[in-house]
Amino acid sequence: MKVLISTAPFAVRDKTPLQILEDAGIDYVINPLGRKFKGEEIYNEIAGYDALIAGTEVIDKRTITRSDKLKLIARVGIGLDNVDLLAARNHGVDVCYTPDAPSPAVAELTITMILTMLRQAHISNYQMHAGVWHRYFGRRLSKCTVGVIGVGRIGKRVINHLLGFDVENILVNDLDKSISVRDPDKIQWRDKEFIYREADIITIHVPLTAETKGMIQEPQFSIMKEDAIVVNTARGGIIDEDALFDALKAGKISGAAIDVFEREPYQGKLRQADNCLLTAHMGSMSIDCRTRMEIEATEDTVRYLSGIPLERQVPEYEYENQGRK
Amino acid sequence: MKVLISTAPFAVRDKTPLQILEDAGIDYVINPLGRKFKGEEIYNEIAGYDALIAGTEVIDKRTITRSDKLKLIARVGIGLDNVDLLAARNHGVDVCYTPDAPSPAVAELTITMILTMLRQAHISNYQMHAGVWHRYFGRRLSKCTVGVIGVGRIGKRVINHLLGFDVENILVNDLDKSISVRDPDKIQWRDKEFIYREADIITIHVPLTAETKGMIQEPQFSIMKEDAIVVNTARGGIIDEDALFDALKAGKISGAAIDVFEREPYQGKLRQADNCLLTAHMGSMSIDCRTRMEIEATEDTVRYLSGIPLERQVPEYEYENQGRK
Repeated sequence: MKVLISTAPFAVRDKTPLQILEDAGIDYVINPLGRKFKGEEIYNEIAGYDALIAGTEVIDKRTITRSDKLKLIARVGIGLDNVDLLAARNHGVDVCYTPDAPSPAVAELTITMILTMLRQAHISNYQMHAGVWHRYFGRRLSKCTVGVIGVGRIGKRVINHLLGFDVENILVNDLDKSISVRDPDKIQWRDKEFIYREADIITIHVPLTAETKGMIQEPQFSIMKEDAIVVNTARGGIIDEDALFDALKAGKISGAAIDVFEREPYQGKLRQADNCLLTAHMGSMSIDCRTRMEIEATEDTVRYLSGIPLERQVPEYEYENQGRK
Repeated sequence: MKVLISTAPFAVRDKTPLQILEDAGIDYVINPLGRKFKGEEIYNEIAGYDALIAGTEVIDKRTITRSDKLKLIARVGIGLDNVDLLAARNHGVDVCYTPDAPSPAVAELTITMILTMLRQAHISNYQMHAGVWHRYFGRRLSKCTVGVIGVGRIGKRVINHLLGFDVENILVNDLDKSISVRDPDKIQWRDKEFIYREADIITIHVPLTAETKGMIQEPQFSIMKEDAIVVNTARGGIIDEDALFDALKAGKISGAAIDVFEREPYQGKLRQADNCLLTAHMGSMSIDCRTRMEIEATEDTVRYLSGIPLERQVPEYEYENQGRK
């Protein structure tokens, strides 16, 4: 049995995932490039492996069908937009993922980015190191109206953090209205247009699907408040990057905080917008969450290759979502 | 009646404080330099005023006794280390302050700085804008042991925020052990040395007094964890800046986040430490808190000059604290 680990970095801070594979007598190869596979790179590597422990690199039909040995794709993470689930099913390849593990780290990075934008701490830090003393007036989170679009595992945690900061106005939107949070009285369900118009902070926690791709474009930016801040720690492509750049440059909104991009590593023009806080897809990158994700994906891989049912098989609705594309 | 407003900025975002003075028929002059008075500047300005609405500039005996007209110093803020209280009393000058107003903004900036350091969001942002993609491994706040030294108005709020992040180990130290927080079971009272040894994050919320000046120096840094992060949003001088610089450069601790300095505007060598997040004394600088501070100090000034008792007179123990110097 042989496993390709395409996600990078892997088992850098904690070697447990490799130990799990070794204890099970399973051979493995870790992505030799040390970065996300691009273009043909995954296709060129995948032949001959029984399972793939995968990141966010594109795993298309051609890659999936290259080898008849491949039986499992184990996603280290929650998003499945990079995996052609229907091609996998048609080719007899099962898919599992780690939907719970990244949530706490993504939610904390989201709050980090919101607070940083509200106080301009990153700008002050840059100026201070350059010898410039300017005391920025900031806004307090509890005084802001915060719109949360997507109330799944991560959105719920973001809402709970917001309640911890005594945010008085939390506007939420999701297809599923059955959320449970600490203090549901402070939550108002609103349509997306209402949130775009009224929120001081708009934070996105939906998956990338045919429905959410390009969800925020020029018409959406044009109805936002001038001092609105838009945050995306979900997936690149949900917010149109060109439209965001134009909105930032034209002052239609006051700022954005973006951790995820249509193409990663990101080299696009948002780098020229000072009012855009940029991080390198680090949402899940806390030591504890990343380790848990890697262990869960590895354990399911070992389970599967030993003939034991998967614990975290991708549910049917994810296939249906992709089928609607 | 004539009031000198030496703190800067003042009434920039909200003109209410100026309206209050105008409605009371009180003349005022706002610090013409637009920045903190240094050296002789306040001495040169103060003659002829009945009251001073003050910031953190040094108000010493010589300045206080310059004019027999001066009757009140109204501090916009909570720290009194810059005002010679005993000289004021001896010269018949009353002093009031705004101890509650800045707390929410200072506590939020403290959490902002802690989260930023844990995820290296400011470093990633800098790199991303420069075209460098590096995914930093961070730590999650809830997994950290956090030491809070000083559990007054601000320390208490910081603790409540930490509880909102489900921090499991909160170590606290204060002279007064009668604090009330949301969840006292999660709080451990420890001596300062224990906190220096055990905490992943050490955040300071004591006033600057004879006892706290130079509280953290080389011996304290030398017993901290190698990955400890030290945060000071209280007052410059509590942490020895030279010792902090040496500790950061020698890797005795992993980072620091500093909003307050011995001399402001800060131009010192911490600017050369990349692992030191620096902000420009912005703790109280949220629009809502700053406005509340300015209004409270102005209202007390108008009250006093109209012969009505102060609402926020500085309590006796602050005079005793300075008497021990």
